[in-house]
Amino acid sequence: MTGLGIGLIGTGYMGKCHALAWNAVAAVFGDVERPRLAVLAEASQDLAERKARELGFARATGDWRSLVTDPAVDVVSITTPNAFHPEMAIAALEAGKHVWCEKPMATRLPDAERMLAAARASGKVAALGYNYIQNPIVRLIRRLLDEGRIGEVNHVRVEMDEDFMANPEELFYWKSEASSGHGALDDFGVHALSLIWILFGGVRRVCGHMAKPYADRPVKDGGRRSVETYDIATTLIELDNGASGAIALNRSAWGRKGRIFVQLFGSKGTIVFDQERMNEVQLYTTDGAGETQGFRTILTSPHHSPYDKFIPAPGHGLGFNDLKIVECRELIRRIDGEAAHLITFDDGIRIERAVDAIARSAHSGVWVDIATGGDRQAA
Amino acid sequence: MTGLGIGLIGTGYMGKCHALAWNAVAAVFGDVERPRLAVLAEASQDLAERKARELGFARATGDWRSLVTDPAVDVVSITTPNAFHPEMAIAALEAGKHVWCEKPMATRLPDAERMLAAARASGKVAALGYNYIQNPIVRLIRRLLDEGRIGEVNHVRVEMDEDFMANPEELFYWKSEASSGHGALDDFGVHALSLIWILFGGVRRVCGHMAKPYADRPVKDGGRRSVETYDIATTLIELDNGASGAIALNRSAWGRKGRIFVQLFGSKGTIVFDQERMNEVQLYTTDGAGETQGFRTILTSPHHSPYDKFIPAPGHGLGFNDLKIVECRELIRRIDGEAAHLITFDDGIRIERAVDAIARSAHSGVWVDIATGGDRQAA
Amino acid sequence: MTGLGIGLIGTGYMGKCHALAWNAVAAVFGDVERPRLAVLAEASQDLAERKARELGFARATGDWRSLVTDPAVDVVSITTPNAFHPEMAIAALEAGKHVWCEKPMATRLPDAERMLAAARASGKVAALGYNYIQNPIVRLIRRLLDEGRIGEVNHVRVEMDEDFMANPEELFYWKSEASSGHGALDDFGVHALSLIWILFGGVRRVCGHMAKPYADRPVKDGGRRSVETYDIATTLIELDNGASGAIALNRSAWGRKGRIFVQLFGSKGTIVFDQERMNEVQLYTTDGAGETQGFRTILTSPHHSPYDKFIPAPGHGLGFNDLKIVECRELIRRIDGEAAHLITFDDGIRIERAVDAIARSAHSGVWVDIATGGDRQAA
Amino acid sequence: MTGLGIGLIGTGYMGKCHALAWNAVAAVFGDVERPRLAVLAEASQDLAERKARELGFARATGDWRSLVTDPAVDVVSITTPNAFHPEMAIAALEAGKHVWCEKPMATRLPDAERMLAAARASGKVAALGYNYIQNPIVRLIRRLLDEGRIGEVNHVRVEMDEDFMANPEELFYWKSEASSGHGALDDFGVHALSLIWILFGGVRRVCGHMAKPYADRPVKDGGRRSVETYDIATTLIELDNGASGAIALNRSAWGRKGRIFVQLFGSKGTIVFDQERMNEVQLYTTDGAGETQGFRTILTSPHHSPYDKFIPAPGHGLGFNDLKIVECRELIRRIDGEAAHLITFDDGIRIERAVDAIARSAHSGVWVDIATGGDRQAA
Repeated sequence: MTGLGIGLIGTGYMGKCHALAWNAVAAVFGDVERPRLAVLAEASQDLAERKARELGFARATGDWRSLVTDPAVDVVSITTPNAFHPEMAIAALEAGKHVWCEKPMATRLPDAERMLAAARASGKVAALGYNYIQNPIVRLIRRLLDEGRIGEVNHVRVEMDEDFMANPEELFYWKSEASSGHGALDDFGVHALSLIWILFGGVRRVCGHMAKPYADRPVKDGGRRSVETYDIATTLIELDNGASGAIALNRSAWGRKGRIFVQLFGSKGTIVFDQERMNEVQLYTTDGAGETQGFRTILTSPHHSPYDKFIPAPGHGLGFNDLKIVECRELIRRIDGEAAHLITFDDGIRIERAVDAIARSAHSGVWVDIATGGDRQAA
Repeated sequence: MTGLGIGLIGTGYMGKCHALAWNAVAAVFGDVERPRLAVLAEASQDLAERKARELGFARATGDWRSLVTDPAVDVVSITTPNAFHPEMAIAALEAGKHVWCEKPMATRLPDAERMLAAARASGKVAALGYNYIQNPIVRLIRRLLDEGRIGEVNHVRVEMDEDFMANPEELFYWKSEASSGHGALDDFGVHALSLIWILFGGVRRVCGHMAKPYADRPVKDGGRRSVETYDIATTLIELDNGASGAIALNRSAWGRKGRIFVQLFGSKGTIVFDQERMNEVQLYTTDGAGETQGFRTILTSPHHSPYDKFIPAPGHGLGFNDLKIVECRELIRRIDGEAAHLITFDDGIRIERAVDAIARSAHSGVWVDIATGGDRQAA
Repeated sequence: MTGLGIGLIGTGYMGKCHALAWNAVAAVFGDVERPRLAVLAEASQDLAERKARELGFARATGDWRSLVTDPAVDVVSITTPNAFHPEMAIAALEAGKHVWCEKPMATRLPDAERMLAAARASGKVAALGYNYIQNPIVRLIRRLLDEGRIGEVNHVRVEMDEDFMANPEELFYWKSEASSGHGALDDFGVHALSLIWILFGGVRRVCGHMAKPYADRPVKDGGRRSVETYDIATTLIELDNGASGAIALNRSAWGRKGRIFVQLFGSKGTIVFDQERMNEVQLYTTDGAGETQGFRTILTSPHHSPYDKFIPAPGHGLGFNDLKIVECRELIRRIDGEAAHLITFDDGIRIERAVDAIARSAHSGVWVDIATGGDRQAA
Repeated sequence: MTGLGIGLIGTGYMGKCHALAWNAVAAVFGDVERPRLAVLAEASQDLAERKARELGFARATGDWRSLVTDPAVDVVSITTPNAFHPEMAIAALEAGKHVWCEKPMATRLPDAERMLAAARASGKVAALGYNYIQNPIVRLIRRLLDEGRIGEVNHVRVEMDEDFMANPEELFYWKSEASSGHGALDDFGVHALSLIWILFGGVRRVCGHMAKPYADRPVKDGGRRSVETYDIATTLIELDNGASGAIALNRSAWGRKGRIFVQLFGSKGTIVFDQERMNEVQLYTTDGAGETQGFRTILTSPHHSPYDKFIPAPGHGLGFNDLKIVECRELIRRIDGEAAHLITFDDGIRIERAVDAIARSAHSGVWVDIATGGDRQAA
């Protein structure tokens, strides 16, 4: 028997991350056939060939369309800029390939809806790259919630902050153009929403606000250009389960590098997590005498599947790239027809709709009800 | 020359705290006359006498009205439940006494406005007990802001969480009755607003949300009673200075004991503070090479006035009660006609108006503009 | 009935701290007679009078000998430089006064032994100022140990680090002179030993090492003078209970301000404490499922006596000066003939002997057995 | 051109880690030829074949001797239990292969010396697996030291603690047998010494102590067996550069999972690192005003080579397995004749000699001078 044939489109930040995952998944997990790294597509044939050699792919192409129809390819990893996702994903699905597309689905909701339709029509697996939900910590949290360890969750706060847009004197570039999307909200706010989705399910109402910390930025030839996107977004939310909450996003937050700060308050305890310390989670429960109650810092360990597949000793730490290897394994699981801890297009569309609702609310200044936007499915 | 004559009404949590401050202020600072602890009022003569003996007051009374007119009294400390503040403060001011009243001013905005009017009419000092702004860390933050160390602040987040209402099986008591106020918002949200006020000035627009984590609570004789107040409140804000922000309050937050988590994002850096670690502040600036940039943890020290009045060595730590001693010194400064780091009724009314606006917004579901609510004064 | 009459010698760092404690102890605890602040002694009559006014003492003197025999004085607080402790303490004890003397007992072991003899002969309470053991956290630790919460403790590490000697370009001053003692070992190492004593009892064997980070320091008139004391000391220890351990002391540790880092390893768990975060303690136990085991951070609260006497709410934080108020209450308890959490001369002499043994070991390069140095008593 | 041919002996904890590194190194770094995973050896042919399939090796053998002479093999990864290292490494070197052997070199110093002799005779690269020095943080620390950012380092503390031997009721197994070595000292203490070596060079004098937290452990058939190894070791050290220090090791430290706590005190600052938070380092310097000095937490980022080869964004975190990939790249660098950040047998022998000296000191109770044990070379 032979492993899945892989086609990779794009070799930037996430493209390399996918490639590393495809290279490693069999060795890490030991229970899947080694994928065949079949074809790599880049903007030019030359670049594609160089990257194919580095990343271990058998063939290279400067034409992604040939990749998505290549008979040697079973799964297409799409890691190009967001604007390309719809065309590539739909083409791959229509060619009968499974798709593993980086988040978000698209820059506009209608495109995402078309992608979902294509996925449903194809009957193939269409998964999204939401790395952070693959942290074994997140699965631990989910299990703790399911077991009622902190009771009923009634309040949720999620913050996501980085500082790649924090310098007001950095030259204007495409992330400040309206065509790139709303700003922090869709640029990385989708990660916050993915965590809420995987832990709790849907959001039913939102009230958003978006802000520009800097009205303009310098341009190369001198002068300044008005910023069109919102580097900051804050949102009040109500979840389907009735919990209240807030989401705060800031991509101009000096000093924050990869912070995703999650606070889950329940009737019997509290869970706190920070992605910048991705191998730790804080748990407070009301068990035991009051004098020794406190937030405990749990370090990731072989207790927290699938950490054990990476390292047999506790507390030694997974890295960001390992999360993609986990996601890769989940994708294969889904392709094999098993249940998987994964965000598919069916789930992802809810995230996209929430983004759209928050943006509309920010512009209108009133609460927006998400449920009215379309049918809802179980996770 | 002789020190100020002190009258203390109430000897609960904050009453004892006031008494400790009046006892200690002269010895700590060494530059004020030792206050005369003149009269203590409690609900009964017996209780008053016992407490006067413990706390070092010369005389005791079961009638607070006699205290506020007592010639030996120059300043009245009011530490009774919030509902009593207006009557007592107004009586004391009308009797020509200075007033040091615990926050918040009142349970209803019109009462607070009457207190302000009385204060203005009296010409006496009317100050509020907002302990947390007295942390030397807060003054350090203010100085860092004034010096532009983190540039222009464009985003502010303040969280305040405790868990004294977290247990859903605790018996219903007055904090769940509508007559006690809105809930988390005025019960301690005023502290969050006091920090914003002292650091940045006013809030111009708010959009609030309030939630009940528990619909009902048990009553003594069996059965359950509906909860009328909101233990959780979240608010989107815009400050007068244009910054965006969010306030999140939860008095049912298991594991949080005295958390006031403040994040101030600026164009050149970030400041983070947590009252649960009240002797530390985190500062990130863009100074120096990128490879060594990071949040630095600054421990309180004699560099941070008036820490030096308490301890000559750095990093040894002030406590919660010390903050009240600092506040006491500021109050005396104000009485002596000097500038003081203090929240007076003139400032406090802005906090009360913000509370009122947030509550109205939470009920209406739309943003409320605070500036339209009345005149604004410089801090 | 009237409270104890207090005589205070010295008004520096610790003198003020004692004064604040005597001022506050009755109001904080509510169950002791208010001490009478009778006489204050300082180097000159003028200074004494000024300080007496500030600190609330009735009378002042420039002659400490008159203070220790003053009929109005029941307890003498000795807060002068260490070299004066023996003479003053012995005089006070011989005059029939209780003594509360700051640590360490003396600069030379024979003097400490003479102090102990005087204390025993007097029948009066002779207590030492070891603030850190008064942290409610320390009592909590002791109780957890007694209850076997971490099983048998088999390994102990204590570090104490500050940076007041860290700058090599600071002018030579008396702390670098041999006459001031060994250096870090007795200057503050006694605090580390006091914690070991109160938690575990005696140390039976030591192997020490002392180091000079800087060979010389500048003098005022130019040039440099050789440093005679050791700013760094490290020691291997074996406790009476058989546990192994290490003590590391550094008063030239840049960035450490008041760090006392304690790690206690037992057969069922671990306790970690850092005085720089004096309102927290970390506890790890093997209770419960492995997947949720972790160090829990316990915040001080009313559960941890006598925190409740200061603040009725948890997590609000005591300060360094509050520890002295606790110690003051324990002293009064002992004077009243009750058991007390306190280091008396009988206990303190063991600390002094351990210091002496460590210093001898550091010079000889071999282990020194402390038990052979004299009789041992139960704590 | 073709990549190095790899032979892997052993597929346990570290064997898998090596395999993952060989699989990933080319894709991560993009500047080396993709290694050929040629032969894998395990205890049996069956196991070898299964593991070869999982880990991507072309051939499998149950006979490691055939692997070390296989013409397709250029480098031999040795990841078997320590007792096998000498025989395998010497055979591989004698067969003209490069060797990458997990730490420590051997269970007895004479064996390690024989390995060194074989390496020198072969002219091949003989490297040791010391993962932790490959953390980009460690290189950052080294660079900061070289640049004098914390001045002259005068005091060093290294702690290494895990809890895999912490349960006294776990069945006796080989780690408690004397044949396995001294205990914590060589089992993982070598890691502590490797960090000291890479940052500072050699240790010149040591004074050790070793302890058994549990005298005996249960055996399967009932009863208990005496423990022969020391789960705890503490050592006073003097470095070649004159700095004093201490090393504390505990493999029965409940709650510690992979803690390596390093404190480096210098004349101008301090560096603190904890491997359990392997993506952070704390730096304190005396730059700037005292009021804003503090330990800054630096998160790993592309500033810290070779983090950038893994992830282009800061603060996203490397994992434990990534360190082995870095080490693999350094090994290839060395094979290519370049300078490398790597511990070779020439360096490793100093670590082994230090271990031997500490153990002898622990038994004799006196300081042992390491320099007298043999020639020293520059790092």
